[in-house]
Amino acid sequence: MNVAFVGLGVMGYRMAGHLARAGHTVTVYNRTSTKAAAWCAEYGGTCASAPAQAATGAAVVFCCVGNDDDVRAVTVGPEGAFHGMAKGAILVDHTTASAGLARELDVRARAAGFGFLDAPVSGGQAGAIAGKLTVFVGGEEATFRVVEPVVRAYGHAVTRMGAAGSGQLTKMVNQILIAGLLEGLAEGLHFAVRAGLDAKKAAEVISKGAAQSWQLENRAATMIDGKFDFGFAVDWMRKDLAICLSEARRNEASLPVTALVDQLYQRVQARGGGRWDTSSLIDLLAKP
Amino acid sequence: MNVAFVGLGVMGYRMAGHLARAGHTVTVYNRTSTKAAAWCAEYGGTCASAPAQAATGAAVVFCCVGNDDDVRAVTVGPEGAFHGMAKGAILVDHTTASAGLARELDVRARAAGFGFLDAPVSGGQAGAIAGKLTVFVGGEEATFRVVEPVVRAYGHAVTRMGAAGSGQLTKMVNQILIAGLLEGLAEGLHFAVRAGLDAKKAAEVISKGAAQSWQLENRAATMIDGKFDFGFAVDWMRKDLAICLSEARRNEASLPVTALVDQLYQRVQARGGGRWDTSSLIDLLAKP
Repeated sequence: MNVAFVGLGVMGYRMAGHLARAGHTVTVYNRTSTKAAAWCAEYGGTCASAPAQAATGAAVVFCCVGNDDDVRAVTVGPEGAFHGMAKGAILVDHTTASAGLARELDVRARAAGFGFLDAPVSGGQAGAIAGKLTVFVGGEEATFRVVEPVVRAYGHAVTRMGAAGSGQLTKMVNQILIAGLLEGLAEGLHFAVRAGLDAKKAAEVISKGAAQSWQLENRAATMIDGKFDFGFAVDWMRKDLAICLSEARRNEASLPVTALVDQLYQRVQARGGGRWDTSSLIDLLAKP
Repeated sequence: MNVAFVGLGVMGYRMAGHLARAGHTVTVYNRTSTKAAAWCAEYGGTCASAPAQAATGAAVVFCCVGNDDDVRAVTVGPEGAFHGMAKGAILVDHTTASAGLARELDVRARAAGFGFLDAPVSGGQAGAIAGKLTVFVGGEEATFRVVEPVVRAYGHAVTRMGAAGSGQLTKMVNQILIAGLLEGLAEGLHFAVRAGLDAKKAAEVISKGAAQSWQLENRAATMIDGKFDFGFAVDWMRKDLAICLSEARRNEASLPVTALVDQLYQRVQARGGGRWDTSSLIDLLAKP
């Protein structure tokens, strides 16, 4: 299939690579063109000079960029993908963005004769490299059926959650869960260290019971060691939590601890930890 | 082995039963004597009229009661187990109590020529019935080696964490983790419902990634349905969190979200939910 991929960041670079390896003909666009050139050298695709050019002739156009504004720029902006897409082509947005943007793009795509899916992912850089991402999809069932086998190139769990926007909403639920969970984990491990326990041993023993979590199993040791130079950056988590809190205001949902953890992440940023992994909440407790 | 079990509550009744089924000669004591009689009828042990009487001739005396005061009453109080134990006998306290109490009883046990282990458990009623509890143990290594094979009757993970009190401290870490995790889960599922998502489907999809937890897998459906008449009661969680927060004050550990969740549980109690499962935090969000 002829496809386009716009945005070759930490996630997109690998996702586009999996599409090429699965046998699709991939045209890529990236704001920093040297990265696009490196991708084409590695995977043997074609580099385009603008999203519109990349989208020309593509049955499916994927994008994975930074935030709502970036998505608008590469889709409906000047030289955006919408200006190159043919009727019947589908735009799949892998960016974690607002549900409102997804609904807006869905309307504009329909008006232009395109399909649209919001499809944020979970699983991080490791998941992107391994091709084992979880993909939360919103949009038309028929559109989903066309795209789903293609997305399987990097998604080991690809689920349609409902109408446009519901992929984004599901990703927000994911981030809300992680925020509370990580602060609880940070406080528990901080307590363990202060109490003089062998905190790594405590984490291991506890992981067999009702306090078990992926974060406990995969982050306890690095949290205790104060290692945060990897993983999912606090800057990105704050972007996601801003979307969650804004959406919660709209839906009148109450998120007291999520709002507090967002503020704690602000303090991590203020001490220079914007690029640290989200598990760095423990640093605020260990080094007040 | 001749053993005694003091406190036949939801947990102790089953734990003592596993000891009897493993072939030990068990003498039991319970404050409400009818329950002790029922236990003896079911498992064929002997009922004692006081902890001291139950402890007479026992190599190991187990207790599993309510709080610090209850533990003091059945051990060093008038007619407490210490008055019946022989030199060399061991007291194993399965109650979730303070680390300070554990250290106090350790000193008093040594002075009297007894062994002492603090050994709070995790796994709830289901774990007690199945004989698959996680047991966090504090105390002397030599004492632990004697008791560990006996505790295996109901403990599938029995770990010595260090000196007296360290079993209790590890249990506190467990409860701190659960508090933050459950509030994050409550906020996420509440958000999902408000946003119009199929919340159960979202929980299932999310449980494959970085937000995965035992609580998500085992409590999401009942939380969404507003079912809380089972599991681990809010009243007991507040007792445990009081111990955590008191210990944190002593060790100068910072637990901002744990303290907040403790206050949220106070609100659950105030609306009559003291006996509800700890996952009932979502009720505060769903029905403010």
